[in-house]
Amino acid sequence: MNMIDIINKTKRAVPLTEQEISWLVSGFTNSNIPDHQMSAWLMAVCLNGLTNEETAALTAAMRDSGNILDLKCIGNITADKHSTGGVGDKTSLIVGPAAAACGIAVPKMSGRGLGHTGGTIDKLESIPGFRTELEFSEFAGIVQKTGFSIISQTSSLCPADKKIYALRNVTGTVDSIPLICASIMSKKLALNADCILLDVKCGSGAFMKTRQDAQKLADLMEKTGKAAGKKCRAVITDMNSPLGNNIGNALEVKEAVEILQGKKKGKLYDISMMLTANMLELAGKGSCEECLAMAENAVSSGSALEILRKTIELQGGDCRICDDTSLLPQPRFSHEIRAPRDVEIRSVNCEEIGMASLLLGAGRASKNDPVDLTAGIVMECELGDKISMDAPLMTLYSSVCSDFSEAAVRAYNALGFRDICGTVFN
Amino acid sequence: MNMIDIINKTKRAVPLTEQEISWLVSGFTNSNIPDHQMSAWLMAVCLNGLTNEETAALTAAMRDSGNILDLKCIGNITADKHSTGGVGDKTSLIVGPAAAACGIAVPKMSGRGLGHTGGTIDKLESIPGFRTELEFSEFAGIVQKTGFSIISQTSSLCPADKKIYALRNVTGTVDSIPLICASIMSKKLALNADCILLDVKCGSGAFMKTRQDAQKLADLMEKTGKAAGKKCRAVITDMNSPLGNNIGNALEVKEAVEILQGKKKGKLYDISMMLTANMLELAGKGSCEECLAMAENAVSSGSALEILRKTIELQGGDCRICDDTSLLPQPRFSHEIRAPRDVEIRSVNCEEIGMASLLLGAGRASKNDPVDLTAGIVMECELGDKISMDAPLMTLYSSVCSDFSEAAVRAYNALGFRDICGTVFN
Repeated sequence: MNMIDIINKTKRAVPLTEQEISWLVSGFTNSNIPDHQMSAWLMAVCLNGLTNEETAALTAAMRDSGNILDLKCIGNITADKHSTGGVGDKTSLIVGPAAAACGIAVPKMSGRGLGHTGGTIDKLESIPGFRTELEFSEFAGIVQKTGFSIISQTSSLCPADKKIYALRNVTGTVDSIPLICASIMSKKLALNADCILLDVKCGSGAFMKTRQDAQKLADLMEKTGKAAGKKCRAVITDMNSPLGNNIGNALEVKEAVEILQGKKKGKLYDISMMLTANMLELAGKGSCEECLAMAENAVSSGSALEILRKTIELQGGDCRICDDTSLLPQPRFSHEIRAPRDVEIRSVNCEEIGMASLLLGAGRASKNDPVDLTAGIVMECELGDKISMDAPLMTLYSSVCSDFSEAAVRAYNALGFRDICGTVFN
Repeated sequence: MNMIDIINKTKRAVPLTEQEISWLVSGFTNSNIPDHQMSAWLMAVCLNGLTNEETAALTAAMRDSGNILDLKCIGNITADKHSTGGVGDKTSLIVGPAAAACGIAVPKMSGRGLGHTGGTIDKLESIPGFRTELEFSEFAGIVQKTGFSIISQTSSLCPADKKIYALRNVTGTVDSIPLICASIMSKKLALNADCILLDVKCGSGAFMKTRQDAQKLADLMEKTGKAAGKKCRAVITDMNSPLGNNIGNALEVKEAVEILQGKKKGKLYDISMMLTANMLELAGKGSCEECLAMAENAVSSGSALEILRKTIELQGGDCRICDDTSLLPQPRFSHEIRAPRDVEIRSVNCEEIGMASLLLGAGRASKNDPVDLTAGIVMECELGDKISMDAPLMTLYSSVCSDFSEAAVRAYNALGFRDICGTVFN
């Protein structure tokens, strides 16, 4: 086989064989195929797409580039969850413990934040002492004991994905649905849980801006998971405004704990319960309604919070944060943004809120940037809220950045207002 | 400016500005933009194309990456010619001297053969002693004296093209009409003759297989040349069978000399005269008919051959080959292919004939391969000919390869026959 022939086939939209895709992935992973040939192929994929069969073969070849975990030792049905990334998305910290409290095992690997989106591993590292790099045996042991553990991606899983993603990131070839699908699903299939729930975020704060693209990605991932023999379901959830009020690492852990403490309801609670119910249903725990009731009971009874507490303890973290979130690292500086006049919140540019949070130190512009675990934004308003003049819209936090001007302008401009000219609020 | 933004624009078919294209070309030429980003951009161009304005800007930026010749010192109107490459195309060796004999100056830079097509520089090097690497002053001096000189591409002209072409060649991004146009036209504009005649080859032995593609390339090159202030014309000529009978370096010089000696007519002569007439007309030497008569007279009077003789002499070559072509290097081995039965030649796969010639040693599979100057094929039949059983179809020559089996099978299979079953020939 010859890489130029393969590039030419994809350029002419002639489907590749499974053998060709497998040769291509292993050749690139072991550096026999140079970056400049791979990036030409990736661009051809961006513009011409891949068939479902090619996507399945690409996913399988990427999965097979490294280890595939054997989770049988856990001795229970296992379920994994993935979110395509958004702003303020801390659902994994709620869904994992809640699903585990309902009797299934949730072994999870997560990534770090990049650009306007956060990453679960950064969030967990805001818990003092929490270790995210565990050997497989320790990881599996914690899942056996508590039903739930989250660790960071290990380099032994899907090395092909790591190498391909790094190249896509610098060659304008990120936004391809088949490539996104293969990147996500190869890692899910290498983790190898029995059930896979995919949360495809859609809206201004998500990579998929339109319902149509989100549906395409959801369908393709579900098909690819099923083709690999998994129980797999993709749901689409809204990301036109941040999920919950808090954006930023410690701030998000705090909010997740508040949800598990039963103190807080709203959109974040509803979506988390819906995701948990879907995971349980996929694992055969009952009907949709039964599973939703089980999930809600896991929160209201406190059993989900107990699981989070035990998992934090076993991963070396300070589990007292489950009772007292003030033990999480606290920001040194804050800045409140208030309504300039009586306004109604007509739109939230969620990606811009994420970028403002990044500017405060909560995220990274490039892969190896440090993160300020205390930084972020607390939204005091939601889409549709009517806010009186001088009432708070949001509060910005940071420990590294005492000059809030740039982030504040960006965050403020992310809100779209309609003036309320002397009319009485309802 | 940022290369990822530029890649994304072309990926989304948003036209780049002149500034962006200029930044991109200079950044790649001086190695600030890495190969993997450039190849992603090149693939986006292959699939989405470029506007005429973008193509003109790309061509200009590539031209400006190196020196631009100042041909005023020649003191005459200058005309350049380019062929997009074919099999047996030795027209430059005929058109240059003929046009010079009619009073215009033809300073020409040519390339070497690659793949199934030959290159004028390889052909000229089969003339004993002939030097193709001259300083500009010597080159211009010869054009002043004889009206005609051909040298090889110098690295000071269009370094961007050299670097981009090398990358296209290994990334499946060769067959893009805007990229082909920019590659050819940047070199023509850097040579900087007043008139540019473009011979777009079309058919089985050409890069442009269809009339439609050839027309697109012809139109685009003509527009790009005119936009840069040149007198520019593109003609499309047939490449569904080899041009003339001889394919291979010394063999083609021999045939060109035979044409200039007035010994040989046919398609090669006709196309050469048509090209010469177009060049003269472009240079303002008269009407189409007048220019054709001048061109034919330059051959029949022997004045074109005189110019070739003087140019060879001034470039250090053995000019006695103009009288006695047996002084050209002679092949050690030959192999005749004869008609297996009475047949009519219904088709010639011209690219396959070129590949057979390459196998004999006349061409190169990759850039630095050595070339056997004596190797090649002499076609004894043409499209439409009726050939009796055992009459010769072609003769293969080589000095490096005494085993003709592979090349002979390939050359024979390139011919499509219709059997003539006992019918009388007309």
